[in-house]
Amino acid sequence: MRIVAALGGNALLRRGEKPDAATQEANVDRAVHALAPLAHDHELVLTHGNGPQVGVLAMQSASDPHLTTPYPFDVLGAQTQGMIGYWLLQALENALPGREVAALVTQTRVAADDPAFLKPTKFVGAVYSEAEARILAGARGWSIAPDGEQWRRVVPSPAPERIVETGLIARLLEANTVVVCAGGGGVPVVETPGGELQGIEAVVDKDATAALLAVAIDADFLLLLTDVAAVEVDYGLPQARPIRCATPGDLRALPFPAGSMGPKVEAACHFVEVTGRSAAIGALGDTKAILAGEAGTIVTPGEPPR
Amino acid sequence: MRIVAALGGNALLRRGEKPDAATQEANVDRAVHALAPLAHDHELVLTHGNGPQVGVLAMQSASDPHLTTPYPFDVLGAQTQGMIGYWLLQALENALPGREVAALVTQTRVAADDPAFLKPTKFVGAVYSEAEARILAGARGWSIAPDGEQWRRVVPSPAPERIVETGLIARLLEANTVVVCAGGGGVPVVETPGGELQGIEAVVDKDATAALLAVAIDADFLLLLTDVAAVEVDYGLPQARPIRCATPGDLRALPFPAGSMGPKVEAACHFVEVTGRSAAIGALGDTKAILAGEAGTIVTPGEPPR
Repeated sequence: MRIVAALGGNALLRRGEKPDAATQEANVDRAVHALAPLAHDHELVLTHGNGPQVGVLAMQSASDPHLTTPYPFDVLGAQTQGMIGYWLLQALENALPGREVAALVTQTRVAADDPAFLKPTKFVGAVYSEAEARILAGARGWSIAPDGEQWRRVVPSPAPERIVETGLIARLLEANTVVVCAGGGGVPVVETPGGELQGIEAVVDKDATAALLAVAIDADFLLLLTDVAAVEVDYGLPQARPIRCATPGDLRALPFPAGSMGPKVEAACHFVEVTGRSAAIGALGDTKAILAGEAGTIVTPGEPPR
Repeated sequence: MRIVAALGGNALLRRGEKPDAATQEANVDRAVHALAPLAHDHELVLTHGNGPQVGVLAMQSASDPHLTTPYPFDVLGAQTQGMIGYWLLQALENALPGREVAALVTQTRVAADDPAFLKPTKFVGAVYSEAEARILAGARGWSIAPDGEQWRRVVPSPAPERIVETGLIARLLEANTVVVCAGGGGVPVVETPGGELQGIEAVVDKDATAALLAVAIDADFLLLLTDVAAVEVDYGLPQARPIRCATPGDLRALPFPAGSMGPKVEAACHFVEVTGRSAAIGALGDTKAILAGEAGTIVTPGEPPR
């Protein structure tokens, strides 16, 4: 079976943790401990988020007095692909002796006329008071928006159209190489009128990219791993209960939070609708049980088995 | 012909330039304009330095109040592999439509008991007064050394023993993929007594790694590209003159500056001595002429042709 597994950025840096290298390396080892066994029996592509990590590097870059302009988000995303890719590469090589692992820098093409560019929605970097945020917005050309009681920078989150290195990824999988790629949703690029690739200031949703990749490489299963055990009905309310199995139609009828579970549900539904295969959403630590159909939320094309 | 081309970090960020993304991207485009034609007729591996870039990220990391400890040099090196790898990947894809390009995160194994760990020599990051440097050394456990009239941090520069992903690189080349790898000399790792890879605080010389890679993948030619036209006798003196062709024996009899031309000459000699093939050192802009034997310094195993 060919599996695309997407690891949340929060799995590598949990809320409240300092972004020190040692902390993230310990989290990566934990994640790979859960994921590596999949590679024994399956072709495995591992993608990952980079929300907390790109936030750290964006703030470092914005504070660097040697730069005229802070690094844009294509460049910052590439930095996190290098860093997180290295951690995953090393941990996978250690966990799978004799197996070849490739950590690739990959780009995700988005449409230059994607409406998301007119309406930035993705929060990035530090929180500010409204007054601070307005000063920074003026000085740096940022878009800003309220995030709870504070303000933050927002960048566009256009829909992924194509992973530029899809052919390379597929060929490596055919040779049974474990592939780490599409980190942070992929480095965002557009195609110029002349047909050249060019980086752009954006952040692509990593779950949407994982679903696109899974379709493009003809994956058998899409596994979206996070820090909750399952998709829930009435999430956050006293009557919340986990969904064990559902069709895209079932899930689309329910409301989900835009920033967290929403994109995962959408990505799983997209993969299932396009391919007629199954996807799952669940907790990293339950990986084995999810594969066995004993944990997480399984999204299936037809009626769930009874 | 299989060619390993090594691009100096200064080719991507020239002395005196600000490390802005746009500046480096323009330099990458210039470099790839010179290098891409090689890929039409040859299998091409491109390695690159990261001296200026890792210095920038090291200073950003050291100034980040959110980190308990600045990122170590394995992690910083991986960040630069992502960033520079992305720039080279995109520029190569644009210059070589239809050709597959792979930008890999790769690790270089060094010996845990390399004597370099007892005597750090590689300057990294900012310059300080002696007093400042001593305070930072005490606070952060840095080794420091004088660099001209100022002081800087120094890190160990152990000899590369093996590029962990050698098999992957060779297999990609066999499929005619252009490969970007071993950036900054590779992410430095050691093997623990238990046989696991582990990152280490070091910087591996990128020319030494390029030579090691060229030997390991059975390359036909090693091309070390920099900002000077040739190796010179009496470099920096009025009577300086370029060396057109020489054997390792000829070159080893001459003195070269430790920080700049020395490692290139050593890397070229090593490759030529081990393989019996040729290497060249020259200017990026002369790439085509160097391949034709009309520019640069050619290092050959036997007597130079007359």
